[in-house]
Amino acid sequence: MRRELPVSELVKTYPASGIRKMFNIAAEYDNLVNLTLGEPNFDTPDYIKEAAKKALDEGWTHYSVNVGLPVLREAVAERYRKTHWDGYTKDNVIISVGALEGLTLSLFALVNPGEEVIVPDPCFPNYYGQILLTGARAVPVPVYEENDYRLQAADVAKAITPKTRGIIINSPSNPLGSVMTKEDIEGIAGLALEHNLYVFSDEPYDQIIYEAEKPFSIAEIDAVRPQVIVLNSFSKSYAMTGWRVGYLLADASLVPNMAKIQEGIVSCVPAFSQIAAAEALKSTECVQQMRDEYARRRDILIDGINAIPGFSCKKSPGSFYAFVNIKAFGKSSEEFAEELIRNAGVVTVPGSAFGKMGEGYLRLVFANSDENLREGVRRISNYVKKAYPNIQA
Amino acid sequence: MRRELPVSELVKTYPASGIRKMFNIAAEYDNLVNLTLGEPNFDTPDYIKEAAKKALDEGWTHYSVNVGLPVLREAVAERYRKTHWDGYTKDNVIISVGALEGLTLSLFALVNPGEEVIVPDPCFPNYYGQILLTGARAVPVPVYEENDYRLQAADVAKAITPKTRGIIINSPSNPLGSVMTKEDIEGIAGLALEHNLYVFSDEPYDQIIYEAEKPFSIAEIDAVRPQVIVLNSFSKSYAMTGWRVGYLLADASLVPNMAKIQEGIVSCVPAFSQIAAAEALKSTECVQQMRDEYARRRDILIDGINAIPGFSCKKSPGSFYAFVNIKAFGKSSEEFAEELIRNAGVVTVPGSAFGKMGEGYLRLVFANSDENLREGVRRISNYVKKAYPNIQA
Repeated sequence: MRRELPVSELVKTYPASGIRKMFNIAAEYDNLVNLTLGEPNFDTPDYIKEAAKKALDEGWTHYSVNVGLPVLREAVAERYRKTHWDGYTKDNVIISVGALEGLTLSLFALVNPGEEVIVPDPCFPNYYGQILLTGARAVPVPVYEENDYRLQAADVAKAITPKTRGIIINSPSNPLGSVMTKEDIEGIAGLALEHNLYVFSDEPYDQIIYEAEKPFSIAEIDAVRPQVIVLNSFSKSYAMTGWRVGYLLADASLVPNMAKIQEGIVSCVPAFSQIAAAEALKSTECVQQMRDEYARRRDILIDGINAIPGFSCKKSPGSFYAFVNIKAFGKSSEEFAEELIRNAGVVTVPGSAFGKMGEGYLRLVFANSDENLREGVRRISNYVKKAYPNIQA
Repeated sequence: MRRELPVSELVKTYPASGIRKMFNIAAEYDNLVNLTLGEPNFDTPDYIKEAAKKALDEGWTHYSVNVGLPVLREAVAERYRKTHWDGYTKDNVIISVGALEGLTLSLFALVNPGEEVIVPDPCFPNYYGQILLTGARAVPVPVYEENDYRLQAADVAKAITPKTRGIIINSPSNPLGSVMTKEDIEGIAGLALEHNLYVFSDEPYDQIIYEAEKPFSIAEIDAVRPQVIVLNSFSKSYAMTGWRVGYLLADASLVPNMAKIQEGIVSCVPAFSQIAAAEALKSTECVQQMRDEYARRRDILIDGINAIPGFSCKKSPGSFYAFVNIKAFGKSSEEFAEELIRNAGVVTVPGSAFGKMGEGYLRLVFANSDENLREGVRRISNYVKKAYPNIQA
């Protein structure tokens, strides 16, 4: 043992980040335009910070209950009564360390070792690791560009086995920028009902949407709602990524079971941050302002990229991600991403970091300043036109 | 599925809190003296709150790296160079959501399903659940009052099997208030070396100690240090329980492996809280002040309890817990704790909530005001003298 310290099998199989490799290459260069960071390029709005500061002054520095403070659980339920189902109460809500820990918590509470959980491919790469933690297995289901990157029930159906315990859906999607339609979601709900599956609906981008009032959520469907765990956070809508405050909504019968697991993972979310989050929910003005900014930046990036020969990118209806088809260049997405760092000075994430189906794509983030986005487009355009003169628009 | 939603086997076997049952009984009454809460009865010192508020103003509201901010990792390493080993650097440190999540993280990184982890009995009850999360099994080893509640290597040795992967030690101890001697710790180190075991040394009370400058830590022993994970937090020393900021120190080769797991559990600890924690470490004045307060309160509670016929309690050399022998009353600790709520108006935790060896004991907390402690003692004394007139001092 003294020579080499053994680690768990989990660590050995835990997926390494395909994003980190690009960061390591990027670290060799200065003056790069970085289009990788999946978080708002805004600070948290002042009224939320002020609420946290006041809560600190008032002594909200002690342990709070595992499930979260009643004031925030009730504020979350109230918001969801308007958007998802008018029957939600605070008894459906657990406050978690971001949507991330809410999903980890849910998986531990509902999925057994050896069982299977279906994930879209491409998807947020943490899903694989989170499922591994529980001893279950992630089963990727392809999502196709020709379906506007919307997960289809017909594809999910092919992956269901007697071991399947749940399906993770993520609309609007990271990394795809897609938004599932009501019909798409109804298809998934039908499978969940037919095969008695849980649906983990990861919805952190639900307020960052450009072509509709709101995305349709599977929790709006009465029949399947008891089997649905909604996961969300304040990270993206309120520019609170670093606060680590999220929540889940689940059938009230499941909540006490999940709370037991919460105790062994993090105990609770800081009370002063919960009070700030409850204050955040009192307004959606900042959410709308940021969405308007993202809408303009979406145009700058995606229109700009589509004007470069060889690139094609759908206009993401939600999130702040652009999933760009680079198959015309005949390179692996990792090679091409590395090439753009070294030769164009722009950092992107290879699509393969999000699953096999991401091969041939890059993920770009438009939560960035107008000038950075313009400069990124300009650099890529200049390089590509020079290096690939034979590729036609 | 619609009728009854299935939960995981983990949830079904996850240990229920023996403390919660007392809380439910206590909820029926008003005007109780509550001696159960395992946290400082102080608010976080102002200089720490101010640092957090400043960090919020400065925009530390974004994601930070999994392992923690360099400024806090370095501050922790500096503290441990003085107390544990002069070779520690920030590369040995991960910032976690309290010592709790640090332990969960460590267990996932180092222990496999089906393996065994030894815990003291009685112990902090979360250890059982945290070990279950990883699919491993907790193996309790009795800790005896006649050994001043100090875990003995000879008892641990009897529990080691080929499946044993690690030992959790906790000195000063919750719930026992005991502090292991250098010889005790050396015994455990010898076993760890002989059997190639990890030692998870949970040290959140290391600065709340009354009869020595500091407790001896197993991480001070060169030979075994690579196998030692030290877990600590700001919760108890700096009255920051609700902030959920802790850390671990481990061999530098293990840190990148553990960081991968951190990503799937919580991603990171809030940056503004990390900055506040780094500021906290710049002073130990508040730590000493609180310890002096606890020292006086320890006398009030333990001397007071020992003056009541039938009770006997060792003078805890560390922590803010008193573990009280109530065997003279011939009741189970749960029955007796319930009796004290209903008839004396004092809430305590039955020792059985911490393991089988806790039967016949109660845990009382002296992190409380002088007057509450005096009132608690007075109430117990009045009730017991009346209800058990035949028990002699």
